[in-house]
Amino acid sequence: MTFDPDRHSHRRFDPLGDEWILVSPQRTQRPWLGERDDAPRVEQPAHDPACYLCPGNARVGGERNPDYAGPYVFANDFPALQADVPEQAESGDALFRTARATGEARVMCFSPDHSKTLPDLDQTGLAAVVDGWCDQAAELGARWRWVQVFENKGAMMGCSNPHPHGQIWATDQIPQLPATECHTQTAWLQEHGQPMLLELAAREAGGPRCVVETRDWLGIVPYWAKWPFEVLLLPRFAVQRLPDLDTAQRSDLAEAVGRVTRAYDALFDVSFPYSMGWHGAPFDGEDHPEWQLHAHFYPPLLRSAEVRKFMVGYEMLAEAQRDLTPEQAAQRLRAVAP
Amino acid sequence: MTFDPDRHSHRRFDPLGDEWILVSPQRTQRPWLGERDDAPRVEQPAHDPACYLCPGNARVGGERNPDYAGPYVFANDFPALQADVPEQAESGDALFRTARATGEARVMCFSPDHSKTLPDLDQTGLAAVVDGWCDQAAELGARWRWVQVFENKGAMMGCSNPHPHGQIWATDQIPQLPATECHTQTAWLQEHGQPMLLELAAREAGGPRCVVETRDWLGIVPYWAKWPFEVLLLPRFAVQRLPDLDTAQRSDLAEAVGRVTRAYDALFDVSFPYSMGWHGAPFDGEDHPEWQLHAHFYPPLLRSAEVRKFMVGYEMLAEAQRDLTPEQAAQRLRAVAP
Ligand SMILES: O=P(O)(O)O[C@H]1O[C@H](CO)[C@@H](O)[C@H](O)[C@H]1O
Ligand SMILES: O=P(O)(O)O[C@H]1O[C@H](CO)[C@@H](O)[C@H](O)[C@H]1O
Repeated sequence: MTFDPDRHSHRRFDPLGDEWILVSPQRTQRPWLGERDDAPRVEQPAHDPACYLCPGNARVGGERNPDYAGPYVFANDFPALQADVPEQAESGDALFRTARATGEARVMCFSPDHSKTLPDLDQTGLAAVVDGWCDQAAELGARWRWVQVFENKGAMMGCSNPHPHGQIWATDQIPQLPATECHTQTAWLQEHGQPMLLELAAREAGGPRCVVETRDWLGIVPYWAKWPFEVLLLPRFAVQRLPDLDTAQRSDLAEAVGRVTRAYDALFDVSFPYSMGWHGAPFDGEDHPEWQLHAHFYPPLLRSAEVRKFMVGYEMLAEAQRDLTPEQAAQRLRAVAP
Repeated sequence: MTFDPDRHSHRRFDPLGDEWILVSPQRTQRPWLGERDDAPRVEQPAHDPACYLCPGNARVGGERNPDYAGPYVFANDFPALQADVPEQAESGDALFRTARATGEARVMCFSPDHSKTLPDLDQTGLAAVVDGWCDQAAELGARWRWVQVFENKGAMMGCSNPHPHGQIWATDQIPQLPATECHTQTAWLQEHGQPMLLELAAREAGGPRCVVETRDWLGIVPYWAKWPFEVLLLPRFAVQRLPDLDTAQRSDLAEAVGRVTRAYDALFDVSFPYSMGWHGAPFDGEDHPEWQLHAHFYPPLLRSAEVRKFMVGYEMLAEAQRDLTPEQAAQRLRAVAP
């Protein structure tokens, strides 16, 4: 008997996130008797008078949205971060450490059309979203060290409103997971002489984990993916931050985002839920040759529109675990990619 | 204006998990328009002919359960870990690292009664579960380096069957999160001269984060809790592993588990979902004076029986974030604890 990654449990290492993942490809055979999310698939109207994100409507905080046409950004009415936080005394207590957290939170409506999600937008609409992301990163990066651009899509991901929108949380402190990516990329460049993710893009192009390939971008299911249909969106050129993208690279990125999200929707014939977001070099005034800009897509679905992967139990207490190999996931996404 | 942890965003550090958590106490005010889990509360029968965990019934794999009376353990019919995995060649490729994963997975029915969960069991029933946990750790620890005892409870946690049961996954490789706890506890003992969690138990007893206190055990909402009503169950005496508990400590643990889970059920008047599990020193034949046995309880609920905390978006991409302080959570649990 020789080792077969399609049949035998094994672990894979994520060099970017610095952690091991348990792969159990034999496990997709188990029957499913648990929770199904049979949320009715509601057709959304282009404008919903009750939606606090639609043009012209009142928001929860009371303010009224303008009659916007393209992406529209406003300050989150219930921000998780505050810009003005009084200085706190250093405690010096190793068991109970507290630190400052300052920042601001914004919401970005992708389109005035309540019924559309990213994969439904045309190239112009997607390019406007990409520009919006880049502009927000530039503007907030001038004030804060870290700008987290992200989207929670779908009720399964806790998204509190179907209107197509994302969020931007900017902080002066580099958050936990990006801080790890700072360390791993720095160590990689030192040891290997080139940025980790630039080498990855070069080696993955045209390979078994590739889902979408454009002139400038690559969408892959990473070798160490945690989520069943996780995608890592990588530039095929050296670039550290969103605002550094030129016009052609942005337009090609719009194309790539459209193709990844359309493959997602096609996979289980459903508006595919996910959390996605951008990681780039911190806005700290330093050069970061070790950094490569990239986006993570983390979708929860496993077997169908209704059966998700639960990251619970073993995953919360011991280690992330996946049930099909990244190569199998990529093949299935490739087969339905537009 | 002076800093007030009940009103101002801040970060707290988890010295056991080695990570920062964002606390946004001002955020509990935001309205909720997203997914509700209005799963009907079904009264379960004491015996369900369709349940593959009930005594006398056939399992998915075909085997028939005995007519068991106390906790009953059997090999998982669809294990995520395999005991016999062929050796794999070392690749030497830093970008695509694979490692061996061997082990075995078991299921443990807590009671023959289909309708009961841990908080519904009497002291005798709970003590039998505690003994079962200890026996499994001893037995599997003789063969495998790590024994992960855990329970996923409730449909919200992906639990595929309401019959009261937990799981045990044993592996020869120390999984990611326990490996981190090995490092942090070792470093702590070196620096501070006593085990981290023994110092923690001593300092938390009777304090604002205490939920349940018995002679030997302490249930606290840790200072660095990620989940809204997370609980860390700690021994008040030095002990490394489950099998090392003596009779009195086990019986007192049964009491503590009963009180924590009953406080949970009382909080939102619902059978409270969670993932919980035990961490102890690895079964590697070494002394581990740095280690303290403990259990983590990770429940998803935030505002009511139906509104959960979603760890998505910012949490998946940047940093765990919580909406009420651990002190507020502990106070609410204490108020309803039996
Ligand atoms: O083994 P179960 O209950 O079928 O499955 C559940 O627990 C496992 C261990 O935590 C997880 O890997 C699965 O995602 C979850 O659905
Ligand atoms: O901001 P929203 O959409 O109300 O809330 C959602 O996204 C946030 C950021 O990822 C999370 O902290 C919340 O748990 C989630 O429900």
